[in-house]
Amino acid sequence: VWGNCHSSNASMEEVNGVPKLMDLLDEPVPGVGTYEDFNTIDWVREKSKDRDRHREITSKSKESTWALVNSVCDAFSGWLLMLLIGLMSGALAGGIDISAHWMTDLKEGVCLNGFWFNHEHCCWTSNETTFQERDKCPQWKSWAELIIGTTEGPFAYIMNYLMYVCWALLFSFLAVTLVRAFAPYACGSGIPEIKTILSGFIIRGYLGKWTLVIKTITLVLAVSSGLSLGKEGPLVHVACCCGNILCHLFTKYRKNEAKRREVLSAAAAVGVSVAFGAPIGGVLFSLEEVSYYFPLKTLWRSFFAALVAAFTLRSINPFGNSRLVLFYVEFHTPWHLLELVPFILLGIFGGIWGAFFIRANIAWCRRRKTTWLGHYPVLEVLVVTAVTAVVAFPNSYTRTSTSELISELFNDCGLLDSSKLCNYDNANVTKSSNELPDRPAGNDVYTAMWQLSLALVFKMLITVVTFGMKVPSGLFIPSMAVGAIAGRLLGIGMEQLAYYHHDWAIFRGWCSPGADCITPGLYAMVGAAACLGGVTRMTVSLVVIMFELTGGLEYIVPLMAAAMTSKWVADAIGREGIYEAHIRLNGYPFLEAKEEFSHKTLAMDVMRPRRSDPPLSVLTQDGMTVEDVETMITDTTYSGFPVVVSHESQRLVGFVLRRDLTISIDNARQRQDGIVSTSRVFFTEYTPPQPPNSPPPLKLRGIMDLSPFTVTDHTAMDIVVDIFRKLGLRQCLITHNGRLLGIITKKDILKHVAQIANRDPDSILFN
Amino acid sequence: VWGNCHSSNASMEEVNGVPKLMDLLDEPVPGVGTYEDFNTIDWVREKSKDRDRHREITSKSKESTWALVNSVCDAFSGWLLMLLIGLMSGALAGGIDISAHWMTDLKEGVCLNGFWFNHEHCCWTSNETTFQERDKCPQWKSWAELIIGTTEGPFAYIMNYLMYVCWALLFSFLAVTLVRAFAPYACGSGIPEIKTILSGFIIRGYLGKWTLVIKTITLVLAVSSGLSLGKEGPLVHVACCCGNILCHLFTKYRKNEAKRREVLSAAAAVGVSVAFGAPIGGVLFSLEEVSYYFPLKTLWRSFFAALVAAFTLRSINPFGNSRLVLFYVEFHTPWHLLELVPFILLGIFGGIWGAFFIRANIAWCRRRKTTWLGHYPVLEVLVVTAVTAVVAFPNSYTRTSTSELISELFNDCGLLDSSKLCNYDNANVTKSSNELPDRPAGNDVYTAMWQLSLALVFKMLITVVTFGMKVPSGLFIPSMAVGAIAGRLLGIGMEQLAYYHHDWAIFRGWCSPGADCITPGLYAMVGAAACLGGVTRMTVSLVVIMFELTGGLEYIVPLMAAAMTSKWVADAIGREGIYEAHIRLNGYPFLEAKEEFSHKTLAMDVMRPRRSDPPLSVLTQDGMTVEDVETMITDTTYSGFPVVVSHESQRLVGFVLRRDLTISIDNARQRQDGIVSTSRVFFTEYTPPQPPNSPPPLKLRGIMDLSPFTVTDHTAMDIVVDIFRKLGLRQCLITHNGRLLGIITKKDILKHVAQIANRDPDSILFN
Repeated sequence: VWGNCHSSNASMEEVNGVPKLMDLLDEPVPGVGTYEDFNTIDWVREKSKDRDRHREITSKSKESTWALVNSVCDAFSGWLLMLLIGLMSGALAGGIDISAHWMTDLKEGVCLNGFWFNHEHCCWTSNETTFQERDKCPQWKSWAELIIGTTEGPFAYIMNYLMYVCWALLFSFLAVTLVRAFAPYACGSGIPEIKTILSGFIIRGYLGKWTLVIKTITLVLAVSSGLSLGKEGPLVHVACCCGNILCHLFTKYRKNEAKRREVLSAAAAVGVSVAFGAPIGGVLFSLEEVSYYFPLKTLWRSFFAALVAAFTLRSINPFGNSRLVLFYVEFHTPWHLLELVPFILLGIFGGIWGAFFIRANIAWCRRRKTTWLGHYPVLEVLVVTAVTAVVAFPNSYTRTSTSELISELFNDCGLLDSSKLCNYDNANVTKSSNELPDRPAGNDVYTAMWQLSLALVFKMLITVVTFGMKVPSGLFIPSMAVGAIAGRLLGIGMEQLAYYHHDWAIFRGWCSPGADCITPGLYAMVGAAACLGGVTRMTVSLVVIMFELTGGLEYIVPLMAAAMTSKWVADAIGREGIYEAHIRLNGYPFLEAKEEFSHKTLAMDVMRPRRSDPPLSVLTQDGMTVEDVETMITDTTYSGFPVVVSHESQRLVGFVLRRDLTISIDNARQRQDGIVSTSRVFFTEYTPPQPPNSPPPLKLRGIMDLSPFTVTDHTAMDIVVDIFRKLGLRQCLITHNGRLLGIITKKDILKHVAQIANRDPDSILFN
Repeated sequence: VWGNCHSSNASMEEVNGVPKLMDLLDEPVPGVGTYEDFNTIDWVREKSKDRDRHREITSKSKESTWALVNSVCDAFSGWLLMLLIGLMSGALAGGIDISAHWMTDLKEGVCLNGFWFNHEHCCWTSNETTFQERDKCPQWKSWAELIIGTTEGPFAYIMNYLMYVCWALLFSFLAVTLVRAFAPYACGSGIPEIKTILSGFIIRGYLGKWTLVIKTITLVLAVSSGLSLGKEGPLVHVACCCGNILCHLFTKYRKNEAKRREVLSAAAAVGVSVAFGAPIGGVLFSLEEVSYYFPLKTLWRSFFAALVAAFTLRSINPFGNSRLVLFYVEFHTPWHLLELVPFILLGIFGGIWGAFFIRANIAWCRRRKTTWLGHYPVLEVLVVTAVTAVVAFPNSYTRTSTSELISELFNDCGLLDSSKLCNYDNANVTKSSNELPDRPAGNDVYTAMWQLSLALVFKMLITVVTFGMKVPSGLFIPSMAVGAIAGRLLGIGMEQLAYYHHDWAIFRGWCSPGADCITPGLYAMVGAAACLGGVTRMTVSLVVIMFELTGGLEYIVPLMAAAMTSKWVADAIGREGIYEAHIRLNGYPFLEAKEEFSHKTLAMDVMRPRRSDPPLSVLTQDGMTVEDVETMITDTTYSGFPVVVSHESQRLVGFVLRRDLTISIDNARQRQDGIVSTSRVFFTEYTPPQPPNSPPPLKLRGIMDLSPFTVTDHTAMDIVVDIFRKLGLRQCLITHNGRLLGIITKKDILKHVAQIANRDPDSILFN
């Protein structure tokens, strides 16, 4: 039946080289045109399929009103999907924020008004609190107070310490157990895998509903456990899961891998948008860092989805301040041109730290992959959590959650701030003025600087072993924390230098006594941008995210200077960002779009078969029996076979995928009368009359790709790589003077790239 | 010499299919590898050339310190270029702003302190002015006051009127004469042409120094003349001219058309950045609207250049308010969800107006192209200027410059605003509060509404005939003005409705008496975005530009709702934006990247030769004499010829460009001994020994592209179009079962697209 359907349906073959799968829906041959797990999709084929589908709907829409309504629905389904993704991701992010906040506070104490209140919320509901001491109220009891009835003395301290560590261990144990038991894909940040998926790779279940549920829960647990990790990367994964799951509601996206990837690109933007409250930055992050195929239509839709998500999050109001952004900052003082020197220094620090971090982290992860360490993931998580909790508790800057720390570091000290970092000598300040001059630091500031230095060293070390463990873990917040601490320290240093030495030539003119000339918070922000840039190698999106935090174009120049320096310095030490490094570590078949291919090899040097190898396995268009084809399938492992006119001429007719061939032959043997091993297989348009008594022929032109991509053997590899990237090919055939000579697959290219970079070509695992 | 150079230099041919032009620099054959005017570039070839150049520099850099320094300089030359473009464009934009401001005021009067002061500046320097009446000071004299000594009475009014019209006529006459005399390319907005150039077309002189000088001068004149046009589009052209001229400083960019287009993309971003003070919006505008090939590296550099330009402009401070943005707005009131209804209505208005405007403007421009109208450009400009000036003067909203009008319309009425639009009844307002409640409108507001309505109709009509005249003219400002007027009118209407009917169900809850619930300025802004979106079909960049004006994410949702509605409505009426429509009107070979190609034709239906035509003109690799080749060149007009093994086999070897062939043969005849008409031409790698007494062979393998792109005749046209767009091809060869069958050029595709859309395929002019 299937063979007949094809041979009778002549129009189908004329439409384009790719079998028109819409027609097959009536008589589905399950599997033809689908992909196996850990395989690369064929973008050209998927996009062709979608255009066929679209054409069909458009042409039908002229026939009846119902079809017209259908076509309008189809056109708006993309927008509806974006709306749903925005709402769902926003709601999830709000839930995650609220739960993580509550559970982080649970490590320190509990609210008597109701255990479900977090510390801040608990004291809001209390009327006895004043503005100045918002976080002290009788309803909130620390664990020592609750259990032994006092907050004073070493015993209470030890009690709190113990409870802190226990809760941390409990949370992280739950997190790692849940991940291992239900969704192994839920660990890590997920961005390397999402990059790979968006580039056209298939990892089944990576964006499934179980991953979503478990990642959401374990993310809260992991963040609350106090480990040095953030929720921003995993939020991108969560948003992509939402996108993937919601795709199932619409045939257009469910059935087409290319269209689905457009949605996932938008979902990645949504993830960053809810993580930072930065919709434009999110879209640019998706464009710059994650996406592979990002048409302009997707840009607009991503922006819409990112906005919806940001406003959903805001209406949930998890931070309790009606702010959209995670770290809201408002600076009052303009920066001076000379300050670019410390900003660039911060950039250099960020670049060096980023490059160092990537090396160390990759070395550690490789160790985990290859040694005994990898066999005890639960133990590893527990040990790291224990070390983190034990070291973190005594230092107030590591005890609080990392995002609160960053918030405090970004903050410009007002007169009313009670933080230790704002303990300045305010003797000469008139209370009424809005602008605060530079002031001498009090003792508490120096204590805070010591504590911050210790926190810096601790964060720098512990993050290396934390990122990559079997719990959800993001890198944005820890990197930003490192940078923010370094920046704040430098900022305070500069401020005091300017205060005590305002007569130095460099400070003269802009830092006279009584002037507010240096904002340590801005230094923290620039430092955070520099470190984040050094680790991820983001550029535009980084600056735009930071810009959305401050909302003023004023501070874009310092951020840009730091981000640029940091990227240059880090690139000089090691070319790869953390995500690319992890992609390579895991051997994903990801063809980097940013890196220029710069060697002068030709297609003939890369193609298979090599000169010494046996010739390419090809099918002939009319000269083989079913048995011949089956033998070829079992004898080889190639994922596809070129079809030629004859072995002598080697003139190319088309290309057949192994999977489609197997499925079609099996199907024909089962469902089509008379197909036996001696049946002739035809890929030609017309089948010549068969001799009497011979079995009926098997016509397979329908599954053949009539427009395989070909290049000549003299084509430079840089052009070939460009074609693969831009068109999203799986394979390309090589010809010489019109004769078929060989084939290059995506994996061949990746191996070649690895070889050139003196890496092991067999590190590319899948495909 | 040239032939020898090639045959001896075997390595050259092995590098890649494209002749390696770096080697030829020693013995330049002038012209090979360059393009003629009004031709399309070959992106693949250009990018290949650049990669070769880069490889050479990298490999040399290991040899000596000097070469290393050279390579570092080369790597940073892109950044340096961006810096220079930013500085130059920012400075020019500042100059244009200041001059236009001064000359606009010159139409009304002159400053006694110095004729070079504009009105505002004149009154700043005066001490007698109060804050409330900033623009009234004794130093500023209107023409009537200066000439007849009074400002009162009909005679003074007529005097001012007359001077206003005279100055306008003088400015526009100067503008059109200068354009016609020195730089015909300086007229119009330039964005359609820049889009075409960026897509790979060559228009010599379009971005030259004369165009820059004349466009800068005439832009000031045109804006000052009071015509209904803006400076934003032309500023993009000016910035691109800067980019193109500065490219000549660096070999890397001077010699490579593809690299130069990367710079021009960044320059387009710079143009919008200085026009609106919106660097991020500018980059997104370039990405979304103008650019064709926009790698991520360019994104980051564009952003840098856009920032440099914006800050250069700010340090020039043309608006005298230290603001970066053209229209700075600050709103205090949040919007209500129900207000989305009027916002969407504005979107519908914007969409309808945009589509109507495009149709009317294109019809008028076509009339100008085909009838007597086109023969009198100076007269046309003078008549339109006269009409504009005569109609504009009596209405105070059209008399001022359009950007001032927009500024006033965007403005939220404070208590101190003296504008007629802010003449509210302030009886019930406590002066201290920062938030102003909704108030009943005074009489002046109703007068202003009448005047604005008249201004709206006038602007809507006059812009249609203004855009496309032979003066520099941008569309952004007039479109925004139309939308801002409509929006403000609707906004005031809503406000008064809410004030007088606050008991209506829809207003209850959010518009109680004494509440500040409706901001007419926001309506003006949304209207401006809607109209601009309707005309240009911008989406993300539009919203981001508007966002950068307000600086708050708060108002992004209204803007987005309006922009989305406006685009959908406009697209439903007519698919093309104004720039695409002008590209089509002028017949530029621009292959739209946004539009999906949706017909199911195959490559064989589009390729040449058609079935009834004579077969394709091909060269054979070893069977032709110089005379044969020359005959073929003179007999045909094709821009290139495929090379095949033999006429019988039609197996493809390579592709030779007509221009390169002509130049090489001429060169060989002049400079190589013994080349005569009977010399055999060889495209093979090895030349067989020639019989004695025969003339020496001409070896041309060096100019042959060994890796021409081929697709099969069964390839769907949508895939072919995709390949052309993404790889930037000029032509693609068509094969069937390994035999060469035909060729598809970019022009063939454009003609095919035109044919499908029921347009005249011969409207595609160049290529």
